Amino acid sequence: MLANTENIVKKINQTLSKTSFGNKPKELYEPIDYMLALGGKRMRPLVSVLSYLIFKEDYEKAIKPSLSLEVFHNFTLMHDDIMDQAPLRRGQATVHEKWNPNTAILSGDVMLVKAYDLLLELEPEVLKEVITLFNQCATQVCEGQQLDMIFENRNDVTVDEYIEMIRLKTAVLLGFSMQLGGILGGAGKKDAANLYQAGVDIGLGFQLKDDLLDTFGDPAKFGKKVGGDIHSNKKTFLLIRAIELAKDKEGQELNKLLNEKDATKKISGITNLYTKLGVADEANERIQHYFNSGLESLSKVKGSIFRRGQLKQFITQLIERES
Amino acid sequence: MLANTENIVKKINQTLSKTSFGNKPKELYEPIDYMLALGGKRMRPLVSVLSYLIFKEDYEKAIKPSLSLEVFHNFTLMHDDIMDQAPLRRGQATVHEKWNPNTAILSGDVMLVKAYDLLLELEPEVLKEVITLFNQCATQVCEGQQLDMIFENRNDVTVDEYIEMIRLKTAVLLGFSMQLGGILGGAGKKDAANLYQAGVDIGLGFQLKDDLLDTFGDPAKFGKKVGGDIHSNKKTFLLIRAIELAKDKEGQELNKLLNEKDATKKISGITNLYTKLGVADEANERIQHYFNSGLESLSKVKGSIFRRGQLKQFITQLIERES
Repeated sequence: MLANTENIVKKINQTLSKTSFGNKPKELYEPIDYMLALGGKRMRPLVSVLSYLIFKEDYEKAIKPSLSLEVFHNFTLMHDDIMDQAPLRRGQATVHEKWNPNTAILSGDVMLVKAYDLLLELEPEVLKEVITLFNQCATQVCEGQQLDMIFENRNDVTVDEYIEMIRLKTAVLLGFSMQLGGILGGAGKKDAANLYQAGVDIGLGFQLKDDLLDTFGDPAKFGKKVGGDIHSNKKTFLLIRAIELAKDKEGQELNKLLNEKDATKKISGITNLYTKLGVADEANERIQHYFNSGLESLSKVKGSIFRRGQLKQFITQLIERES
Repeated sequence: MLANTENIVKKINQTLSKTSFGNKPKELYEPIDYMLALGGKRMRPLVSVLSYLIFKEDYEKAIKPSLSLEVFHNFTLMHDDIMDQAPLRRGQATVHEKWNPNTAILSGDVMLVKAYDLLLELEPEVLKEVITLFNQCATQVCEGQQLDMIFENRNDVTVDEYIEMIRLKTAVLLGFSMQLGGILGGAGKKDAANLYQAGVDIGLGFQLKDDLLDTFGDPAKFGKKVGGDIHSNKKTFLLIRAIELAKDKEGQELNKLLNEKDATKKISGITNLYTKLGVADEANERIQHYFNSGLESLSKVKGSIFRRGQLKQFITQLIERES
C-alpha cells in the first residue's frame, strides 16, 4: 500500500482490529475492544509511523509497536473518564457508564499491560531504551492528570502552570510518539530528540487549539457541543487568561457569568468577554508559536525530505483543523 | 549481611524505603509511599531473592528488580480495595478512604509503571524475557480479580472454578516471583519452570490457608477479625464446598445462616456447619497437597542444596503459620 496518511491510518486500524487482547473473562476484554472500536484519528500511531518513514520505507514494521501508543492513550481515557465522571466518549457511552467503574478500572489496568506487550517485538537493545522512555512518558501523563484534577479546585492557576499541566497530560505523549517512530526507524540521538521536541510543541499547540475550538468552533463542523468548557467552568487557557485580565467591571461581569445558571446566557456572555479581552487572539498567537517551534525542530531532523514534508503536512492539518 | 530470611527482608525494606517513586505532585506520590509503608511480609520479593540465592550468592543484585514484585502487588491491592470498597488495609485506612477513589486509581496506575521501571536495570537480553513473563502474570492477576468479582454474583461457583480464580489472582504472582529470582540468578529453562510451578502450587496452598485461618484462626494470633469471610458471604473454598455438600436439613440450615443478620450467630453457626460437613478437613488436605506438590517441584531445582533448604524452610513456615 502507498504510504500516504490515509493508507497508514487504514493499516493502523486493520492491524488494531486484528490484534486480540484476550477473550476470557469477556467482562474484562469486551470493554477494551469497545473502547478501541470507538474510533478516533489514531493520531499517535500515525505520527509515529510518519516519523519512522523519515528514516525507513518499510513502515509496516512500525505499525504494531506504534499501536502501543493508541492502547496506552485509550487506557488513560478509560480511567480519566471515571475520574471526570464523563458520560460520553466520542458520542458513545463511556466504559464506566456502559459497564461500571470497577470494570473500567480493571480493563484499563490490563490495557496498560497490553501497551507494554505491543513493544515486546522490538529488538532487545532498543527495547530497554524504548521502555525507559515509555515509562517516563506514562508517569508524566499521570502527573498531568493529577494536576488537572488539582486545578479544578483552585482559582489561582497561572498560565505557566496550565501550560505545564497540558505538557504533561497531552504533549509528552505526542513527543514520545514521534520519538518512538524515529527510534524504530534507526534515528540517531539528535534526530530522536528533535522529533520529541517537535511532538511536545505540536502537542501544546494541539491542546490549545482544542480549548479554542470548544468555545469558538463552528457548531456545524465541531464534533461536540460548542461551549462545553464554559458551561462546566473548565479551567482552560481562555478562562485562566480572562481571570487574569478582567479588572473592575469586567471582573465583576466574569464572576457573575461563572455563576450564571442559564447555560445559553453563560456561554454567549463569556464568549463575548473572551473576545473583548482579546484572549482568543492570544490563544491563536500561542498556538501559532508552538506549531512554528515544533515545525522548526522537525526541520532539523535528517532523513527523507519527502517524508518529513509528509509529516509537516499532517501537522499543518492539525493547525488548521476545525473539529 | 548474612543472607538469612530475616536479613533479606530487612534489606528489602531498606531498599524500598530508599527508593523514590517521585515527588511532584505530592497528591500522586504520597499515596504510593503510604501504601508501601503499611508493611507486610514482603513475601514476593523475599521468595524471589531466596530463589536467586539457589544459583548465586551476591543477592544484593536481586533486591531492586525483586522490588517490582512488591510494587506490582501493592498496585493491585490499591485498585482491588477500591473495587471491594474495603475501608481498611493492614489495619489502616485504604488509599481511596484516606484520599479518594480518583487518587487511588491514578496513584495505582503510576505504581504499575514504576513496577516496570524497577525491572529496567536488567541486562537487555534478560529484560525482554522478564517483561514478557511479567506481562503474562499481570494479565492473569487482572483476569483473576475479574473472576472474583463475577463470582460474587453467582451461587453456582464450582471448586474447580474457584481454584482457577485463586490461581490467577494470587498464585501466578508467587510463581513468577520465584521464577524471576531464578532467571536473575542465571537458572536454566528447566529450573526456572520448576521454580514457577513450585510458586504457583505454594500460592494455591497459601490462599486456601488464608481462607481457613479467616474462619478457624486463633483470634489471639490472627491479625484480622476471625469470621470476616463468613460475615460477608465471601465465596471461599469452605463456603463453596459447604454449598455442594449440605443437603436436606443441613442445606436449609446453611441457607438460613447465610441470611442471618446476627453476626455472632451467623459466624458460629456456619463455622460449626463447616466442621460438621468436614470442609475444614478437606481444606487442610488440599493445602497439604498443594504445598507438597510445590516442594516436589522445588526439589527438582539444581543449584545450592543449602539455599534450596532455606527456601523450603520459609515455605514450611507459610504452611504452619497461624496468622
